[in-house]
Amino acid sequence: MTDLREHTSWVAVDWGTTNLRVWFMDETNAVLDQVSTEQGMGTLSRDAFEPALIAALAPVLSDTRVLPVVCCGMVGSRQGWVEAPYAAVPVSPLNTQNVVTVPTTDPRICAFILSGIKQVTPPDVMRGEETQIAGVLRAYPDFSGCICLPGTHTKWAMVSDGKLTKFNTFMTGEIYALLSKQSVLRHSVDGAACDEAGFVQGVRTSVAAPEMVAASLFGIRAGDLVLDRMGDVSNGLLSGYLIGAEIAAMRNDLNSSPVVIAGASKLSALYAQALATIDISADIHDGEACTLDGLIAGYELLKDTI
Amino acid sequence: MTDLREHTSWVAVDWGTTNLRVWFMDETNAVLDQVSTEQGMGTLSRDAFEPALIAALAPVLSDTRVLPVVCCGMVGSRQGWVEAPYAAVPVSPLNTQNVVTVPTTDPRICAFILSGIKQVTPPDVMRGEETQIAGVLRAYPDFSGCICLPGTHTKWAMVSDGKLTKFNTFMTGEIYALLSKQSVLRHSVDGAACDEAGFVQGVRTSVAAPEMVAASLFGIRAGDLVLDRMGDVSNGLLSGYLIGAEIAAMRNDLNSSPVVIAGASKLSALYAQALATIDISADIHDGEACTLDGLIAGYELLKDTI
Repeated sequence: MTDLREHTSWVAVDWGTTNLRVWFMDETNAVLDQVSTEQGMGTLSRDAFEPALIAALAPVLSDTRVLPVVCCGMVGSRQGWVEAPYAAVPVSPLNTQNVVTVPTTDPRICAFILSGIKQVTPPDVMRGEETQIAGVLRAYPDFSGCICLPGTHTKWAMVSDGKLTKFNTFMTGEIYALLSKQSVLRHSVDGAACDEAGFVQGVRTSVAAPEMVAASLFGIRAGDLVLDRMGDVSNGLLSGYLIGAEIAAMRNDLNSSPVVIAGASKLSALYAQALATIDISADIHDGEACTLDGLIAGYELLKDTI
Repeated sequence: MTDLREHTSWVAVDWGTTNLRVWFMDETNAVLDQVSTEQGMGTLSRDAFEPALIAALAPVLSDTRVLPVVCCGMVGSRQGWVEAPYAAVPVSPLNTQNVVTVPTTDPRICAFILSGIKQVTPPDVMRGEETQIAGVLRAYPDFSGCICLPGTHTKWAMVSDGKLTKFNTFMTGEIYALLSKQSVLRHSVDGAACDEAGFVQGVRTSVAAPEMVAASLFGIRAGDLVLDRMGDVSNGLLSGYLIGAEIAAMRNDLNSSPVVIAGASKLSALYAQALATIDISADIHDGEACTLDGLIAGYELLKDTI
């Protein structure tokens, strides 16, 4: 533990709505250790953020130096620790104008929050995903194309010349959870596996006739009643219809663009499979690794100013 | 009360998932009285249906005759009182082959359940709405066109030569409730009024580019954050995007068809307004009155066989 305290030269923090994730980093940007708690932004009142962070940092805090802490995510929202105003597209996903220094009371840390990004037309916002995009760009500085960040609110971001030019958020993950657990469809899909053929069929249906997505959903329940369809096929169809609707909406932007998917492995694989139905191949990266890479890029940007 | 018991010649029952609605009818098919309870199909075990009905019929039961009871709705589902197998399209919404006689133990009633209707390609089902359609056809026997039945699960049914030829169910009401009360959009729309201009804008957007519906939803939240949009505009947009998606899906079937909307008045008015954006006018009928008219048509069909 003494070694950890001694060798930690800064701390990377992904502070979302439901979780607080902390990496203890050495001077070469290697991870020495990491901790995670459920003290997400959504569970904390404004004055509870600093104590929550200090508690998580206990293994590495020292009275003899000031530890830089670089944070991203919903911690910078209006309901968060300190509001970090959105930067507007087109913009580099990371830059020194878009970092907020948090007025902390504990002298052992200096904390920074990386801003989210907004788009006015059509309106859209991100907080945290810009850091994942910066992580992808740290690995591929010359990347131009589309970065897909699947999750509760999936983002499709167009990147060109190091800048995020536009993006689009889909509530697919949240809608999937509501439909599969709380709607009439729960009788047909809750707890079932995701059948691959059903998934591909759902994607193809949505891509071919996106105006029919709203009409297709109840057919999942009816197919169960009328055709005795299996639960895993129903579940595959539900995922396929919803992710297929994203592909249909993004299709014009995806022509001849390289695509990178950065997310959790199972979900990323589903998105890659959906893209394959329109003959687009995608490179998959681990979403958490991209977040950390983006926080490292943020620290590199900031460290000369600290 | 004696008069009511004496003059009731049959009973009409709309027994759905959440409510039991009973009309006491005289021999001219006029309503003498009505009662409603929350003992819907979803709250009852199989052996609780008859006692619930008997309790509701207490004011009119008599030991000296057998009272006909004509029921429609989810009471005939697999989880209901007695399963009434679906009739398959194309089919008359009411016919003697599609009525189930319930084996009751109380000698004072004879009870019938009107069957629901299924469609195999694409899979779809209805229970209760077929009776509303029969009600519309009782008033307009020669109607050919589209009957829209807005609600939790909105149905659009094509009718021709007295038969239901095909139909399409949209989970719009249920999805609206989930999104407005439980998703991230609740922060922007919960409890707000429905702004008319926002609604029309939402409908037009979905009709013009149905592939963008999934992309538009998160924009409701983002528009609140980025543009300080009012809650009632956000709520109008949400309703508009969802109902507009129905119009987009149904559009090809609606060309030059007359349209009847049968539902609750506020919701019916929204659907009429949505149809007006593509220059289709619709006649609005009260949905509950259509249910009762359909039950009357069912009784007229059955009474010679009782």
